[in-house]
Order: sequence, then C-alpha cells, then structure tokens
Amino acid sequence: MSTSKGLEGVIVAETDITALSDDQLSYVGYSIDELAEKAEFEEVIYLLWYKKLPNEIELESFKQALFDEMFLPEALIEQLRGLNLQRAHPMSILRTAVSMLGLYDDDANQEVSEDVNEREALRLQAKIAPLIAAFSRLREGKEPIAAKRDVSYAENFLHMLKGKPVDALEVEAFNKALVLHADHELNASTFTARVCVATLSDLYSGVTAAISALKGPLHGGANEQVINMLMEIKEVEQAIPYVQDKINQKEKIMGMGHRVYKTGDPRAKHLKEMSKQLTKEKGQEKWYLISEKIEDYVKKEKGLPANVDFYSASVYHMLGIDHDLFTPIFAMSRTSGWIAHILEQYKNNRLIRPRAEYVGPENQVYQPIKERS
Amino acid sequence: MSTSKGLEGVIVAETDITALSDDQLSYVGYSIDELAEKAEFEEVIYLLWYKKLPNEIELESFKQALFDEMFLPEALIEQLRGLNLQRAHPMSILRTAVSMLGLYDDDANQEVSEDVNEREALRLQAKIAPLIAAFSRLREGKEPIAAKRDVSYAENFLHMLKGKPVDALEVEAFNKALVLHADHELNASTFTARVCVATLSDLYSGVTAAISALKGPLHGGANEQVINMLMEIKEVEQAIPYVQDKINQKEKIMGMGHRVYKTGDPRAKHLKEMSKQLTKEKGQEKWYLISEKIEDYVKKEKGLPANVDFYSASVYHMLGIDHDLFTPIFAMSRTSGWIAHILEQYKNNRLIRPRAEYVGPENQVYQPIKERS
Repeated sequence: MSTSKGLEGVIVAETDITALSDDQLSYVGYSIDELAEKAEFEEVIYLLWYKKLPNEIELESFKQALFDEMFLPEALIEQLRGLNLQRAHPMSILRTAVSMLGLYDDDANQEVSEDVNEREALRLQAKIAPLIAAFSRLREGKEPIAAKRDVSYAENFLHMLKGKPVDALEVEAFNKALVLHADHELNASTFTARVCVATLSDLYSGVTAAISALKGPLHGGANEQVINMLMEIKEVEQAIPYVQDKINQKEKIMGMGHRVYKTGDPRAKHLKEMSKQLTKEKGQEKWYLISEKIEDYVKKEKGLPANVDFYSASVYHMLGIDHDLFTPIFAMSRTSGWIAHILEQYKNNRLIRPRAEYVGPENQVYQPIKERS
Repeated sequence: MSTSKGLEGVIVAETDITALSDDQLSYVGYSIDELAEKAEFEEVIYLLWYKKLPNEIELESFKQALFDEMFLPEALIEQLRGLNLQRAHPMSILRTAVSMLGLYDDDANQEVSEDVNEREALRLQAKIAPLIAAFSRLREGKEPIAAKRDVSYAENFLHMLKGKPVDALEVEAFNKALVLHADHELNASTFTARVCVATLSDLYSGVTAAISALKGPLHGGANEQVINMLMEIKEVEQAIPYVQDKINQKEKIMGMGHRVYKTGDPRAKHLKEMSKQLTKEKGQEKWYLISEKIEDYVKKEKGLPANVDFYSASVYHMLGIDHDLFTPIFAMSRTSGWIAHILEQYKNNRLIRPRAEYVGPENQVYQPIKERS
C-alpha cells in the first residue's frame, strides 16, 4: 500500500457544508461572492449549522440566543487575569481559555447528543468574542466591556474590544472578514477537529484541538506575517525593491498563492475593496498602495495571486486591532465552520484511525543496562 | 476518487517508533513483552524519543533532567485551584492545565527547532505527573506534594498522588502499566497530534489536541468503564449472569476486542498477572476473579480476547487511584508516545490537508430575508 503523506487529494469525508474548486468557494451552495456582499455573519453561522438561510423570525431568535450567551462567567474572568497575558502567545491564551470555557459548561460532561451539541455550539460561538476582547483588554490593564443588545456580532466584537464607537464602514469590513473566513472545507485545523471528535469527545475539545492547529505558522499565522511585512516596508516606493530582494533570496512572500486555488482566491477581492475604502477613510492609503504593488509584482513575476490573508492584514490594521490578535480573530470566525464540521462528524461518525508503515530496526534484543554502549 | 472514511488501513506516514501486527507490539524493534518485564518507564521514554536504549550514564542524566523539571510553577498551582475542580471532567481539567503549562514556557513562543522541542518535551513529560497529582489532591482539599529525588517516575507519581509509602509490587505494577500504554502507533489521539503539529504548531498545542481526542469514550475512556462494570457486578457469582444479560441485550462488554489485534492484545497478559498479585496482596481477590470469569466467557461466546484496558482497571483500583483518574493516567503515559510522534512529524514535515467530497445543494440563489420561507 502506498503512503499518502499529507493526505493531498485524498477524500476522507462527504460534506454538505462547503465546496471548493480552482477559483470558487461556496457555503451550502451559496457563492461566497453573494454572501460576502449581502450576508451578516450571523446568517452565515446559521447557514453552516442548519444548512439553510434563516428567515426573519429564525434570524431574530438566533441572534437573541447568541446575545443571551455573549458574556463570560465571573470566575473565568478572574482566571483570565492570571494567564501570564504579558508573555504568552495570544493563540496559546485562546487555546487555554476556550478549554477553560468547557470547565464551566456541565454539558461538556454529558455524552454527545443533538441537544447537548446545539447548546454547546451556541455558547462557544457567543463567548469566544467576549473572550478574545477580554484578554486583549486585560493585558493592557483595562477591564472587559459587556456586549450590547441589538447590534451585530461584528459590531459587538469591535465594541467589546475597543469600547469606542465604530462607523458603518468599519462594521461592514469586519463583517465581510468574518463571513469570508467562516469555513474552508478540510483545512488542517478543521481536519484536526474532526479527527479529535471522531472519538466522540466533546465540542470544546474539538475546538481546542482546532485552535491548537491554527496556531501553526503554516496555517493561521499568515495574516500577521503580512502585516509585519507591510510594517517593514513602510513606504510605497520601498515595496518593489523589498519584494525583489525577497524573491532573489528565495524567500516566500506571505499571503500569496494557495494549495487549492490555482487561478486566484475568490475571497481576496472583497477584502481588497475594503482595504481600499478603509485606508482612504483613515487617510492612510499607503498601506493599500503598498499591498497592491506587492500583489501586482508577485503575480507578474511568480504567477501567484493574493490569497485571503493578504488584504485582511491592512483591513484589520485599519480597524485598530493589535497585530497579534489577527490569528485569534481568524479563530473566532472559523469557530463557526469548525462547529459545523464537528456536528457533521458526530452525525455519521466513524473513528479516524489510519496506519503507519514501520521502517525502523526489527527484532532487537534487550541488553542489560551495564552491557549497553 | 473513493472516500476513505475513518482512514481504515490507509498508510499516512512512515515511522520508526512503533510496530503493530495481529498479535505483536514493539517499540523501536524491542518486543513489548521484554520491555514490560525488564524496563523502567524512563528507559522507554528515552527509547521512543532517541531510538536507542540508554546506557547507564545516559539514563542517569535523563532521569536527573526529568527530576529537575518535576515541579509546577507556583502561579500554575494557584490557577489550578480555580479550575472548577469539583464539577469538571478530569480530562477537561487536564486538557486545560497542559495548555496552561505552555503559557509558562517561553519556548512555546519560539519557532519549532530541535533544541526548543527537546526542552519542551522534557518539561511536559516531567510536569504532567505533578500536574495530575496536584489537581487530584486539590479537589480533595489537600495540598500538592513535591517529587522525591532518586525514585522512579512510577513511584514518584504514586508518592505525589497519595503522600503515603508505596510497596515494591505497587511500583512494579504501575511501572508496567506506564510502559504498556506508552505508544500505540497512529491511534486517534496520536494522529490528532500529528495533524495538529504538521502546521508547525508547538509541542504543547500537539499534546493538548491529543488529550482532547483521548477524552472521547471511543478512545481513552474504556478502563474507567471497565471498573464501573466490575463495581456493578460486585460479587464473583454475579459475573457470568451480568455478562450474559449484556450480551443478550446486544450491549458491548468494555475492555474486549481491538480493531488491530485480532488474536489477542499482547499487553493484556502483563496486567493480568499484576492484577492477580495485587488483589492477592490486598486480600481483594474477587476483582481479579470477576475479571477472569468475564474474560473467559466473552472469549468463548464472542471470540473477543481482553485488551489492555481490561486488567488495567483492577490494577489501578488496587493502587487506590480514583476511577476518574484512569484516563488522565493513560494520558500521562501516552504523552511519551505523543511526543515521539510529534518529533517525528517535525523532522520530515508536510501539512496534512485532505479533501472532502461536496454532496450538498448547488448554485443556490441568495434571497432577500423577507422572501425566505
């Protein structure tokens, strides 16, 4: 039998959540282009979990249920204060804090069942927003801020994070980013979550495992690396020389190319437009212009188009979000997709247990310790 | 392309750690029978990580290095006190606490490299023993106990857990259990860890993801279910009627059969012998006798031999270990194997990213919310 290292191209599940092709992405059959332009993130969560777009009554009741859970237990806030917030990596903090959320949910001690899963799903998706906002504020010596009633998930997160009014363009841009990152089929973190819960472990375990995977620089860290690059470049006229130099040194340009999309990442254009508008609104067009120069040059020289991470970097920077929170925010959005896949795995479960081929020494004889070299 | 659900029989990696066949298990080419009879757990950890048995000097220095890390940061002990210890599942606590350990290790913020990995590996393997002992004591209102110099890992754990002298037979039995559970190729938790760190995420993330998977009842929970069964049966003469009844009801008998070993789990006999000796020493032979009756009956009626979980249940019970700690102890031993596999994955890495086949609705048209049914 041949070895499928990386499982590239190996189909391990049937899914009715997300479809990818060379240049297309759809959630439950709806093109990402339409969803990015028209849908609220809450509609997309509902779509991923229940496989239909909610009508007015369903959406209202879903948003209410999310709001009702959008707070943290007092004991958890106390615990967060002690989590070595100044030194530890924000993804390590998020991994720990999401795992901790499970300690305060008695459903996590139950056998998995539809009711249990649905309650946990709602709680986790609601609470991850105040969780990220809270540890970000606590590490700056500020107190957490409560969620607001009757505003969208996107606006509520920015409110809890910054405690300042946000304008319509900021909310629009952030909502688009959440919609565009919500799911992406069997990427490494989603597959980690599915392997994990195929043991019938609970939903908090599945999302904790997914966050553990997203932390890796080959997966979730790319948009943070893009903003670091923009910060190094600083001025528009430095963009091309910087990238030329990287290419000459055979270094990778972050945010370019994708294993699945060969002709272009369908998510990139929506964030490109938001980056253009936001940088203009803030009078900081240079971040957009630097990005565009890099994109054009790398496409021409290397044939690699920009991916979703590339323009999300300048968008988040314009929203005043700390650079090391970019990956936790990716996790907040992707939690909706992780949960959809976890629920799909539970519904038609089989333990995921592949094999390895042993290629080491055989039939070794145990020597008494005094006789070993 | 056909769907490999569960990846049964699919080879996803070459390994030089562990080999399984129908009725054999070996670590780096050494038969589990020889290791169970002759090796200390520390020798086995060394073998799994460095692919050779240590000589006297190497073993001495390895044990010293483990002992030097076998303590918890004071801040972590304070955090443990607040982890809802009375109500939460011990595996949820362990998942959180191991994730938390990563917050106190600056190496977890570094890029993975051989030096970083080796330091993290040693710390994590050393600290998981006082970690489990500490939260077990704290939930009983007792204070943690420090590790002793110059005793084995097995003895040290029992010492830190109970704070009472342990005899030679208890240490022998517990050491054997640690050796026998140390690795088992690409079981679900080990595969979870490898998928996770193939993103180049850190070692704490990998082990946290593995614990998240081991928590599932299809994976790590079996020995706890075996002891629950023995407790329900209570008396030797009830064993056969109880099992007959379960079989008639088409219920599963826990601790019997295995997906890979068809003719018998090579680990079971070692723990069977320990169960026999320990129950005799403690004057509680009935737990051994009940177990033996179940084993013989299920083998005769269903053709299923006992697996490693079956006799570990009565062994741990005789060691006075709380039943809900059986799975955390499994994790403590398996951490050695998880780490070996994580290190192997890093050495020859490729992102693990399979595909799904989309079978849901296509080309759906986004309706304005007021027009949705």
